[in-house]
Amino acid sequence: MALIVQKYGGTSVANLDRIKEVAKRVIKTREEGYDVVVVVSAMAGETDRLLNLAREAAPEPDERELDVILATGEQISSALLAIVLNSMGYKAKSYLGHQIKITTDSFHGKARITSVDAEKIFSDLHEGRIVVVAGFQGEDERGDITTLGRGGSDTTAVAIAAVLGADLCEIYTDVDGVYTTDPNICEQARKLDRISYDEMLEMASLGTKVLQIRSVEFAKKYGVTIHVRSSFNETKGTIVCEEDTEMEKALVSGVTYDKNQARIEITKVPDRPGVAARFFDAISAANIVVDMIIQTASLEEGYANMAFTISKTDFPRALGIARSLARELGAKDVIAEEDVAKVSMVGVGMRSHSGVASKMFRALAKEGINIKMISTSEIKISCIIDTKYTELAVRSLHEAFELGKERK
Amino acid sequence: MALIVQKYGGTSVANLDRIKEVAKRVIKTREEGYDVVVVVSAMAGETDRLLNLAREAAPEPDERELDVILATGEQISSALLAIVLNSMGYKAKSYLGHQIKITTDSFHGKARITSVDAEKIFSDLHEGRIVVVAGFQGEDERGDITTLGRGGSDTTAVAIAAVLGADLCEIYTDVDGVYTTDPNICEQARKLDRISYDEMLEMASLGTKVLQIRSVEFAKKYGVTIHVRSSFNETKGTIVCEEDTEMEKALVSGVTYDKNQARIEITKVPDRPGVAARFFDAISAANIVVDMIIQTASLEEGYANMAFTISKTDFPRALGIARSLARELGAKDVIAEEDVAKVSMVGVGMRSHSGVASKMFRALAKEGINIKMISTSEIKISCIIDTKYTELAVRSLHEAFELGKERK
Repeated sequence: MALIVQKYGGTSVANLDRIKEVAKRVIKTREEGYDVVVVVSAMAGETDRLLNLAREAAPEPDERELDVILATGEQISSALLAIVLNSMGYKAKSYLGHQIKITTDSFHGKARITSVDAEKIFSDLHEGRIVVVAGFQGEDERGDITTLGRGGSDTTAVAIAAVLGADLCEIYTDVDGVYTTDPNICEQARKLDRISYDEMLEMASLGTKVLQIRSVEFAKKYGVTIHVRSSFNETKGTIVCEEDTEMEKALVSGVTYDKNQARIEITKVPDRPGVAARFFDAISAANIVVDMIIQTASLEEGYANMAFTISKTDFPRALGIARSLARELGAKDVIAEEDVAKVSMVGVGMRSHSGVASKMFRALAKEGINIKMISTSEIKISCIIDTKYTELAVRSLHEAFELGKERK
Repeated sequence: MALIVQKYGGTSVANLDRIKEVAKRVIKTREEGYDVVVVVSAMAGETDRLLNLAREAAPEPDERELDVILATGEQISSALLAIVLNSMGYKAKSYLGHQIKITTDSFHGKARITSVDAEKIFSDLHEGRIVVVAGFQGEDERGDITTLGRGGSDTTAVAIAAVLGADLCEIYTDVDGVYTTDPNICEQARKLDRISYDEMLEMASLGTKVLQIRSVEFAKKYGVTIHVRSSFNETKGTIVCEEDTEMEKALVSGVTYDKNQARIEITKVPDRPGVAARFFDAISAANIVVDMIIQTASLEEGYANMAFTISKTDFPRALGIARSLARELGAKDVIAEEDVAKVSMVGVGMRSHSGVASKMFRALAKEGINIKMISTSEIKISCIIDTKYTELAVRSLHEAFELGKERK
């Protein structure tokens, strides 16, 4: 019998009425002849409520204990769904992370799944049950509860789909699928029928918050086909799968943006070997993730400029480190820009098509948008611009690359 | 190092301020040189909130799944206490039932603890940690979450005290200890310094809701000394321990009452062998617990009267069964009384003192209170009376047995 893993996000199980709708959809899939494993998130708002409760207890709650509290959100929603399914006449059983040995490392709050034991699930499916799994949680080698970070239930679903060898992993959310860009700022945004894992990874990490990045990595590694779709309608969503030749024909697949960016530049650093290393060692020791890095050396004068971007949340700390190191190294100045955004073009077509970058720069120049930094990868080009131009940039690029038109 | 197990009830951890008070008390005990294991209930009202949520999902929620939901109450309060203790500079770790292998049978909602694994607790205590355990929950042989019923955290605490060989098990609640009777209806009610396990068992099962009965059974079986006391003050409470000669000197220890009673009488049942068995088989098959049973046979006429008491909640179902069986057996009538209460005298002194029963009946007669049924055990005499006389009866008996006076 074919097997489908379905994951329902927080808004899809926001209240009992919504949970009953989810139950109907699960039953419909069951009636179509599939074995079904359901992964659920906490009811919308619950994780924040629990987080606030823990922070009221202590501003920086012990991480091990915080995970114990956060895990209850999914514990409740999974059991509620099982209760509803049973009451509708379908045998169902809920499982917590530890009960099906969703084993993770010990990084509380952002743990990574290392293995899942499929035995109990298979035996329940064999006995005709619907299996409901609490997403977002696991257990480390010590038997402590861990959580997987925001969007972690996506990864739970994909990991389970991988272990069970499921035919499909459906991710139900409150949007219809993956769009060429954010429909809230660009009316022409178009839903993509298919997108490759690599494109999705770039889209997700660049701020399109449809899937947790790690779930896409998992899906890519184990070849799990994902169908991202809405639990509020019957519309087909977006399939995330292996790259195919169709995808390559398109120049780019989407435009993304991220306003949670800040830029720091240290000017006229005496250009000695090891200067950059010394600086980024200090930054990474402070657990700050640096995104773009650009170093320009003026060989004549023996000076270099170093610029990098970080997330806005890390900005104050990064600035402190930059200033103290600039003094130490005898640099001229530290320029801090908190009002910058990153706009990116993503597409596997870039591998075989040239001219994407120049077309992008021309489109931005045409609108008078100054590019402060550029970084590129195999399937992505990103530019740092003033935050105020973000929406204009996204619309212009979407238009310039004709993303609103159906792919042939 | 001496070891104390402390259990804090729902009102003692009702909110974060209360949890911080609990933390201070735990730390005080730690600073006095004790190893401390803390067992906590859910925050007051939480279990009811969760129960209502499950019942909204389905009027009769699947029992396995209901326990998954109910267990989150203690999961949250135990982790919150650990967070607060850690923030106050004391290393603390919370454990859920399954993490320290609190193994139970599979009767969801009223499971019985069969074993506890002390290994993790000992190793944490050895490393200087305070251990916090989520009360009320366990795990059955299949790995399913179970709960122990109302007051189940008391039993968790006593079971852990038994396994660890603790020197004392303190049960912190919102009353000062065990009283000779309910202070709300009798001003002369006096707090008992000490009470035997057997007396406590009779007191608890008769409606003095200070300790879960099963916790007292456990304490008796494993010789755990319990100290019932208030978390809202420093007053000494009541010690529950082995019977001693002091206790035997007192005629009775307390008066209890239970208004959750109903009485059914089947009159003129043709008196054939097996009639009673047939009737009580039907009642117990319906999972109804019968308390008192009185059968009076009139040998001349070949008829018997059968009377029994059940809890008010079981009354409608029991009445239905009684009526249909009465018809079948050709009995004359079924008399149903829903407005009855049980008043009881409890005391190990009864074993050696005579005249307690007659003194009790005289005291009730003096107030013109009619006794509808009587039952006795080694250390208890109970009478069924009209509910409206309950308070009067309790006060009269308390007075007649001079329970307000200090035991010498």
